[in-house]
Amino acid sequence: MQKKRILTGDRPTGPLHLGHYVGSLVNRVKLQKDYDEFIIIADVQALTTNFDHPEKLKEDVYNVCLDYLSVGIDPNLTTIFIQSQVPEIAELTIYYSMFTPVSLLRYNPTIKTEAKQYGYDAKGMTYGFLGYPVSQAADITFCRAHLVPVGADQVPHIELTRKIVRRFNELYAPVLVEPEALVGDIPRLVGLDGNAKMSKSLGNCIYLADSKEDVAKKVNQAVTDPARIHAKDPGHPEVCNVFTYQKAFNPKFIPELEANCRAGKIGCVSCKKTLITAINELLEPIRERRSKYEKDRDLVTQILIQGTKRACEEAKKTMALVRDAMKINYFKLS
Amino acid sequence: MQKKRILTGDRPTGPLHLGHYVGSLVNRVKLQKDYDEFIIIADVQALTTNFDHPEKLKEDVYNVCLDYLSVGIDPNLTTIFIQSQVPEIAELTIYYSMFTPVSLLRYNPTIKTEAKQYGYDAKGMTYGFLGYPVSQAADITFCRAHLVPVGADQVPHIELTRKIVRRFNELYAPVLVEPEALVGDIPRLVGLDGNAKMSKSLGNCIYLADSKEDVAKKVNQAVTDPARIHAKDPGHPEVCNVFTYQKAFNPKFIPELEANCRAGKIGCVSCKKTLITAINELLEPIRERRSKYEKDRDLVTQILIQGTKRACEEAKKTMALVRDAMKINYFKLS
Repeated sequence: MQKKRILTGDRPTGPLHLGHYVGSLVNRVKLQKDYDEFIIIADVQALTTNFDHPEKLKEDVYNVCLDYLSVGIDPNLTTIFIQSQVPEIAELTIYYSMFTPVSLLRYNPTIKTEAKQYGYDAKGMTYGFLGYPVSQAADITFCRAHLVPVGADQVPHIELTRKIVRRFNELYAPVLVEPEALVGDIPRLVGLDGNAKMSKSLGNCIYLADSKEDVAKKVNQAVTDPARIHAKDPGHPEVCNVFTYQKAFNPKFIPELEANCRAGKIGCVSCKKTLITAINELLEPIRERRSKYEKDRDLVTQILIQGTKRACEEAKKTMALVRDAMKINYFKLS
Repeated sequence: MQKKRILTGDRPTGPLHLGHYVGSLVNRVKLQKDYDEFIIIADVQALTTNFDHPEKLKEDVYNVCLDYLSVGIDPNLTTIFIQSQVPEIAELTIYYSMFTPVSLLRYNPTIKTEAKQYGYDAKGMTYGFLGYPVSQAADITFCRAHLVPVGADQVPHIELTRKIVRRFNELYAPVLVEPEALVGDIPRLVGLDGNAKMSKSLGNCIYLADSKEDVAKKVNQAVTDPARIHAKDPGHPEVCNVFTYQKAFNPKFIPELEANCRAGKIGCVSCKKTLITAINELLEPIRERRSKYEKDRDLVTQILIQGTKRACEEAKKTMALVRDAMKINYFKLS
C-alpha cells in the first residue's frame, strides 16, 4: 500500500531553535518513516512580511535545510524543497484566488490576529499578505498531501484549505485531495525569559546550532522562580521557566526535581546543571550531523535540488489534473 | 536597432466584432510591422469573472486566435500566446502582490467601476478579481514590453503597472521595463442599437465571422434617426447609429452622405446599402483568410504553440532577471 503523503515546513526566517525542535522537528523525524513526507521551505511566504529584505533568504534557506538534516531528517525518506522553485504553486494560487471571496480572507480570525501582530492596519496590508491562506492552500495541495501536522491553533488554516479544495472539486472535477490536519499535542516551549516569542534579538532561546558553552551560558542566565532568593527556599516550579524546559528535556527526572525544588532541597544552580546536561546530550548527535553537512555545502545544495525536482514532478502531475478538470488543457508544450 | 516591444491582447470571452476591429485589431495589424508585437489571450484573466465556466475557454481561445489571423495578424511578425501556459506570469503576480497595498487596489476607480459593472459588492468580490491589476502588471512586464496600446480610459491601469514596476526596481534592482501607454485616438463603436455594450444576446453587433447576408440583415435592422419617417424627411446624422458606422467604414463618403441625409436627398435604405457594401468589402479578405485557417485547425494550434513557446522563452529571461534582483537565485534546475 502506498504511504500517505504529509506536507509540513517552515518560513526561512532564521535559525531553528529548541522550540521548533519539540514543536515539530522531532515529530517530522518520526513521521518520515511511515509517511511520504514533503517539507516546504516557504521562501515566498516569508516575503509576505520580509519583501523588503529578500537578500537574507539565500542564506536562511541553506541554514534551515542544514537544521533539518542535523536533526535527522533523512533526504532519502523526506523531500525537502524550496517553494519559489515550484512555479505550479504560484499557478494554483492564482486559480484558487478566482473563486475565493475577499471576505473569507479579510474576516478570518487568524489573519486578523497575524495582521495585528505584524502591525498591518487595514490600509497598510499588502495584497500578498491578505492572500497568504490561498497560497498556503496551494502549498498543501500541489503535491496532493493527505495530512498536515499542526498545532490546535493552526486548525482554522487547514479548514480554509479544505474549503478551497471542496470548492474547486465542486466547480470543476474532484481531482484535488482534501487534506486533514494531523493535530498533535504539541508542547509549547516559551523563551528562557518566559516570553512566548523566541528570537535572536531577545537572546532568549537555544538554537540547534548552539555550542555546549552557549547552552550552559543561556540556561545559567535564565530567570527561575523570582520569589526564591536562597537555594534552601522552597521553589515554585509552576512559575519557573527552567522547570518548563526540564519537562521538555528531562521528563524522567520531573517527579524528583519537582519534589526537591518545592522542599528547597535542590538549588537553581544544580537544577540548571541537570538541564544543561540533558540539552547538550540531545544536541550532541545534532551537532555531529551538522558538522558533517557543514563541510559539504554542495551536498546540501544537491539535496535541495533533488528534493525540489521531485516536488516539481509532483506539481506537474497535479497541474495536469487541474488543467484537465478546468478544461484549459489546450495542448502539451514539450 | 532592436524593435520596441508591444504587449496587447484580449480576454477570450467570445467572437470578436467590428468594435474590436476599429478599436484595436486594425491598429495591431499596422503596428506589427514596426514593433515586436506580443498578443496575449488572457484566459486566466477571463476567469476573474467566468471562473464557473472555464469549459468555454478552449473554444474561445481557438476562435480569438482565428479572428486574429483572419484580420491579418501575421504569426511571423506577431507572437500570439495563451496566458495560462506561461507560469512565470503567475509567479510575477505573486511577487508583485507582496509589496502592493490592498488599498491601492480597493480604492482604484477603474476597479470600483468594473466591480459595479459585474455586480460585485464589497463582500462578493473574489480575491482574484481584486488583484487583477497586479496580474495585468505581470502580463505586461513578463516580456519586458515597452508599449501598451490603449484607449484613454485605460491609462490608469497602465499607471498602476508603472507604479508596481517602479516599486520593484527600487526595492530590488532596476531590471523591469517601465511600460508606456501608447494612447491612440481609438474610435468608439457603439452597438447597432446605440447600446455601448455589444453582445451576442443583444444581437447588436457585427462579428468578423459574419457572412454577407448576416451583415446585410443586421444593418437593415439597425435603428436610424427615429424622427425620420419618410425618406424625404431631413435626417439628423448626429443621432443616427448607422451614420456612426458610416464614419468608421465609409469615411470618404461622409461629406456627401451627411449633406444628402440632412437635405432628405438620401433615404435610410440606400444609405444602409452603401454601409453594407463597405463593411462587406472590409470583411471579404478577412473571410478569405478565415476560411483558409478554418480548414486547418492544426495550423492554428501550431501557431498558438509556437507563440506560447516564444512567450515562455521571454518569460524565462525575465524571471532570471527577477530572481537575480531579488537574490532568490538559489540554483539552476536544468
